[in-house]
Amino acid sequence: MAASPFDFTPLLPANLPPPAARWTGRVKFDFTGGNNDPDALPLDGLIAAADAVLRREGRSLATYGLNSGPQGYRALRDFLVLKLGRDAGIRCGADDILITSGSLQALDLVNHTLLTRGDTVIIEEDCYQGSINRLLRLGVTPVGIPLDRDGMRIDALEAALVSLKAKGVRPKYIYTIPTVQNPTATVLPPERRAALLKLAADHGVPVFEDDCYADLTWSGARPPALHALSGRGDVIHIGSFSKTIAPALRVGYIVAPWPLLSRMLALKTDAGSGALEQMVLAEYCNAHFTQHLPVLRRALRAKLVTLMEALRRNFGAAAEFDDPQGGIFLWVKLPDGVDALRLFQLAQAAGVAINPGPEWSVNKARAASRLRLCFANLSHEEISQGVALLAEICHAEFGLPR
Amino acid sequence: MAASPFDFTPLLPANLPPPAARWTGRVKFDFTGGNNDPDALPLDGLIAAADAVLRREGRSLATYGLNSGPQGYRALRDFLVLKLGRDAGIRCGADDILITSGSLQALDLVNHTLLTRGDTVIIEEDCYQGSINRLLRLGVTPVGIPLDRDGMRIDALEAALVSLKAKGVRPKYIYTIPTVQNPTATVLPPERRAALLKLAADHGVPVFEDDCYADLTWSGARPPALHALSGRGDVIHIGSFSKTIAPALRVGYIVAPWPLLSRMLALKTDAGSGALEQMVLAEYCNAHFTQHLPVLRRALRAKLVTLMEALRRNFGAAAEFDDPQGGIFLWVKLPDGVDALRLFQLAQAAGVAINPGPEWSVNKARAASRLRLCFANLSHEEISQGVALLAEICHAEFGLPR
Repeated sequence: MAASPFDFTPLLPANLPPPAARWTGRVKFDFTGGNNDPDALPLDGLIAAADAVLRREGRSLATYGLNSGPQGYRALRDFLVLKLGRDAGIRCGADDILITSGSLQALDLVNHTLLTRGDTVIIEEDCYQGSINRLLRLGVTPVGIPLDRDGMRIDALEAALVSLKAKGVRPKYIYTIPTVQNPTATVLPPERRAALLKLAADHGVPVFEDDCYADLTWSGARPPALHALSGRGDVIHIGSFSKTIAPALRVGYIVAPWPLLSRMLALKTDAGSGALEQMVLAEYCNAHFTQHLPVLRRALRAKLVTLMEALRRNFGAAAEFDDPQGGIFLWVKLPDGVDALRLFQLAQAAGVAINPGPEWSVNKARAASRLRLCFANLSHEEISQGVALLAEICHAEFGLPR
Repeated sequence: MAASPFDFTPLLPANLPPPAARWTGRVKFDFTGGNNDPDALPLDGLIAAADAVLRREGRSLATYGLNSGPQGYRALRDFLVLKLGRDAGIRCGADDILITSGSLQALDLVNHTLLTRGDTVIIEEDCYQGSINRLLRLGVTPVGIPLDRDGMRIDALEAALVSLKAKGVRPKYIYTIPTVQNPTATVLPPERRAALLKLAADHGVPVFEDDCYADLTWSGARPPALHALSGRGDVIHIGSFSKTIAPALRVGYIVAPWPLLSRMLALKTDAGSGALEQMVLAEYCNAHFTQHLPVLRRALRAKLVTLMEALRRNFGAAAEFDDPQGGIFLWVKLPDGVDALRLFQLAQAAGVAINPGPEWSVNKARAASRLRLCFANLSHEEISQGVALLAEICHAEFGLPR
């Protein structure tokens, strides 16, 4: 026991990401992450579903994949066929779906199937941090397309495609979160969806549609998915139960043509995603998903109102934001002098976690004074207190709000 | 809809694995895979555990990682600290453990943290197919060490290390399944463990210990883990609940020093493994794991006896095998004329699935007439019928058994 510990350092490959930091717990006012409203979690329904499905077919847990094969529990895929048809207009069968360990594994599988070092992809300029980081880690260049209040700007997309073509670059895909975009919460209107698909087709570029927030519009209405609007089999569609049921469950899915899905399946070397969660979700969602959603949407909308009121009260005109059509986050612009990365550090030390804009954009300059504030997991009181604390820090450091 | 479907082929990177085949269901007599005994699955206990843990703390599902951080549900790691100390002699804390999506994700994380194309590793000559395939896919050379009835031969290990050293090659690790080895079911005795660790230390090579079958010795006894016997922090230890509770759950774990674990954690980009399964396992195992194991072991041992009797009855002296000390599989040697790969194809067509030896060994010639037969998932009657059918096929094709 006295020997000095073995040094693994010389054995590590050159291109590893930096080591993870020790986890030190969550801060009191955590406005980050896709965490959801604990009170809107349909706990009684999940408990009843777990009991029912385990009593009926629990012994199938003794078999890898529950006798459903490597694409995931059949009853869950059957539910998704119905749900995606009804809500997103997607026509697919259970064999077109691969259940994944959250939509993050879906992102990884799509990326590892299509991308290689030196590739270029198109994304929305302000974009989910996890998607940006994955691309950079793979040595892929993300070309950002600016957004306006209706999501990705089609004129800018066309200009980017033309410019890349002139340089002989064919992007591997156009990645978009068209419905409740992360972090802007914009919803791409149908005419822009058609135009995006037309451009993609003209340039021979597939579309990668990340639909994980699409069930969370306040009205419950949403445009058809890009997957539904394209008849060309050029759209990869991914989604998740993290935002609608519970993030800790880690259940997502991919809808893609078999020639591509079969390549992703070959890269999914985990012998299937968690069966218990798939069983419980299928059992619960088949009976209750459509009744659950309005309850969740109302709870989220109410927390958003609390957040917007707290921002207006504490920041006044210094905090600019649109009233989002759905989702769990607000994309906030502070005055140009505010360094969001600096604010992030100070706030963290004071017990307030925020997502600084530069981490959620490929346009670091434009996002320099922006924040992403997630509002689903905190209580109404915590939202108000956290925003007040953030305003105090902001005032002390930047003299804002005045 | 009339347009021809988008062709993804030109977009795929060069080094993708071949596409997965469509799943066509399991054959009637499936002697493959790590599937377990459905009757020994502790279903009532799991149902009660799910109900209790969800009622008590189910609302934490609204948060990624259940407020336990990225290394996994704290109560499950606490159980593992106790279990690994009691059963395997491992002294570790909850912070030394990373919960994974089955031990297959653990394999991938260890490999991606340590290996790069062109590397060499040492493994047991007859070895888990998934481990061999992962290495080959990564462009890593596995050097196989022959086994005898006591597992890896230490003289052969020493010769291999010396030979590699002479060539200037430092293997990245020695991978071993020391306790109920897959596929030979051998258990490495304590003195060989000490000798293996000594050789590893002398050559500066870490040890990668895969302990996923270690709870399944018939006696319940097992030598201390290599991790427990080394005081040098040079052993990476992985395990699983797949073989003891249920494979479909997909819960495994890694025990490793933090400088290495923090690199694996950085590569674990799925925002945690399934929380519901971790919660149910922690709740169930804390109360019942030690009572459950003897029930499972007895059920497995009885099925092994049925399998060995069926082999003796149908194959006579043509089927050679040792009486394993534990596990869920039997490694069978048929006469030299039998081509196991050919037998595999014929048997599959007749509704009998087997693992042909060459797929479970890096010594293809020596394994040419060997089979791995898993016995946990089939009923006693199916085991008997399946072996009789296998003997018929073998007789028709190879004139054996006579």
